Amino acid sequence: MEEFTVTPWEVSGQVDYDKLIQQFGTKRIDDGIREKLKRISGELHVLLRRQFFFSHRDLDLVLQDYEQKKGFFLYTGRGPSGEMHIGHLIPMIFTKWLQDVFKVNLYIEITDDEKFLVKREMKWDDTQKFSKQNILDIAAIGFDPDRTFIFKDSEYIKNVYPLLLKIARKVNHSAVNAVFGFNEQSNIGITFYPAYQAVPAFFEKTRCLIPCAIDQDPFWRIQRDIAEDLGYKKTAAIHSKFVPPLQGITGKMSASQAETAIWLNDDEKAVKNKIMKYAFSGGQATIDEHRKLGGRTDVDVAYQWLSILFEEKEKKLRQIHDDYESGKLLTGEIKQILVDKINNFLNEHRTQRKKAEKLVDKFMYSGKLAKNMWEARFE
Amino acid sequence: MEEFTVTPWEVSGQVDYDKLIQQFGTKRIDDGIREKLKRISGELHVLLRRQFFFSHRDLDLVLQDYEQKKGFFLYTGRGPSGEMHIGHLIPMIFTKWLQDVFKVNLYIEITDDEKFLVKREMKWDDTQKFSKQNILDIAAIGFDPDRTFIFKDSEYIKNVYPLLLKIARKVNHSAVNAVFGFNEQSNIGITFYPAYQAVPAFFEKTRCLIPCAIDQDPFWRIQRDIAEDLGYKKTAAIHSKFVPPLQGITGKMSASQAETAIWLNDDEKAVKNKIMKYAFSGGQATIDEHRKLGGRTDVDVAYQWLSILFEEKEKKLRQIHDDYESGKLLTGEIKQILVDKINNFLNEHRTQRKKAEKLVDKFMYSGKLAKNMWEARFE
Repeated sequence: MEEFTVTPWEVSGQVDYDKLIQQFGTKRIDDGIREKLKRISGELHVLLRRQFFFSHRDLDLVLQDYEQKKGFFLYTGRGPSGEMHIGHLIPMIFTKWLQDVFKVNLYIEITDDEKFLVKREMKWDDTQKFSKQNILDIAAIGFDPDRTFIFKDSEYIKNVYPLLLKIARKVNHSAVNAVFGFNEQSNIGITFYPAYQAVPAFFEKTRCLIPCAIDQDPFWRIQRDIAEDLGYKKTAAIHSKFVPPLQGITGKMSASQAETAIWLNDDEKAVKNKIMKYAFSGGQATIDEHRKLGGRTDVDVAYQWLSILFEEKEKKLRQIHDDYESGKLLTGEIKQILVDKINNFLNEHRTQRKKAEKLVDKFMYSGKLAKNMWEARFE
Repeated sequence: MEEFTVTPWEVSGQVDYDKLIQQFGTKRIDDGIREKLKRISGELHVLLRRQFFFSHRDLDLVLQDYEQKKGFFLYTGRGPSGEMHIGHLIPMIFTKWLQDVFKVNLYIEITDDEKFLVKREMKWDDTQKFSKQNILDIAAIGFDPDRTFIFKDSEYIKNVYPLLLKIARKVNHSAVNAVFGFNEQSNIGITFYPAYQAVPAFFEKTRCLIPCAIDQDPFWRIQRDIAEDLGYKKTAAIHSKFVPPLQGITGKMSASQAETAIWLNDDEKAVKNKIMKYAFSGGQATIDEHRKLGGRTDVDVAYQWLSILFEEKEKKLRQIHDDYESGKLLTGEIKQILVDKINNFLNEHRTQRKKAEKLVDKFMYSGKLAKNMWEARFE
């Protein structure tokens, strides 16, 4: 087994997710939880069936709260440092499913402040431009406009500043240094930021559930450390694995390396070129060898992406798996299947994104939840 | 000469102000500057005549800017941790004089956030209650309602958050640790706060002048370090000495030790009792000895307070000095002079405070400058 690293800022190596659960002290999503979710939802989301969402904190308590009619709420976010790629959309897609199933409020934090603080060369205007574009992509997912509040940190600060201070007062530097690796060279803004990231988990007195990739888990340890002291519940979380980059199944799709990802604004030709050229193949060097020996689905990025999300039907995925392993399906063919799936997905996304232009105002200001949130003041 | 300590949080010992100027790297306010100020103002304020304001940074450049019609602006503040005492009012009184003379804008920051972050047991509501009371005391000073903006950090954050981030991004922990003595046990809010304290010095592109007691100087070193990088001028400052506590001429009047200070809401009887009982006397043990040997004005707190502010007339102060030193004036008598002066001062203050109730809205929201400031957004 190779070495691997998982922190909020670095994912590298081939991740051993069982080991990670141990390291992070989270729990595996077991059959019991999946069955309960299936009973409530009717049908499990593909991201749960395929165990792409695989780990959790207190998800059992969330479901218990739900069954006891205590309710809960959802919280996720986006750092507007640039355009979004497919990997960024996956937690959003899953979050929408959770909202549809449970009919709960959802808060989406756009962390324009954090991105500005982290990226020394970034202009404030850029954070605002990317925020606007990212919010459109998020609005395209189809959340409930009356149960979803999308807010920019810089805009909503006026409603939460006293709460932010209350949180900050409870957290010292040894805590954030340990979690985030800050040091004397860190700027005085970025070390304050974890307080704001905890804020939405205090928007309601019920339990908060955060769907996120598992590398983001440390952010909420801070919230869990102080929540009960402040009279709130520790936030729960449901964790995904990482979408592998095109180049191979180690690490994760990275915003800072453009060619590792499929971007939401890649056109059909770009998608095809990129997958054909870069997607790491589990196939053999020649067609003859491939027919004879078969391909390896466990390292083939096209297959992996199909299995994470893009081929939802179990039977079809099984067929692709068997045909590729047996050598019947060639590398170019499995890649073409993915190209078509992704282009369908992106075309649909762009259609929804266009429609969402009219919805942004509801999510941010005028929908039922948004309106309540602008009237609220958190202390 | 005794040892002494001067930091933003501790003033102890008998301060050697010449040494302090060297330590802090500031400049003495010399005759040249005083003459220039006299030429402009017609008559020097007593706090300048008596050299209670004694040190500065770039005050010469401020006066140069003024003479070259470039203008400048004033900035001061108040941490609303409780009621105010006479020591708190002195920089305000001097600031009003500067505003009257130069007809410039003045920004007064009410740091409700800082006080909340520093005082672990303080409730948010308390910071708001004290803010309200303190603002009334400040409004009573008689600033120009169209050239003065009094704001609470927690309220004005919405207009300055991006600027705050821009400042914070430029300041790292080694800088604030060195200036403020923060460490790993400091909370993540208080180490961010120096960014907000720098904000008002960036409200205008002209030079900022900050009147303050010299222990507050380190706060603005941070601003001076980064100002030019952000396209602004380094802030200037004019520094006062400390008002000695009733108990003796070491240290300073302290809000955390109630009996060391005269509070703005002390009634006539309380003022008399406190001064008679606590004010450290430079007189002799018995009347006979006093008549024979005379008193020491250099350690007599009543005399010191008279000389700082409360006896404005040079001739009268000289007389008091000579009479006390010669033994003609007794301890009870010099104290009574101070009691009368302070009670007059406080009665007048309370009258003005009552009138100021109607002005607070102008200072905070509806005056000319305040209105502009609520329409502005700082990035």
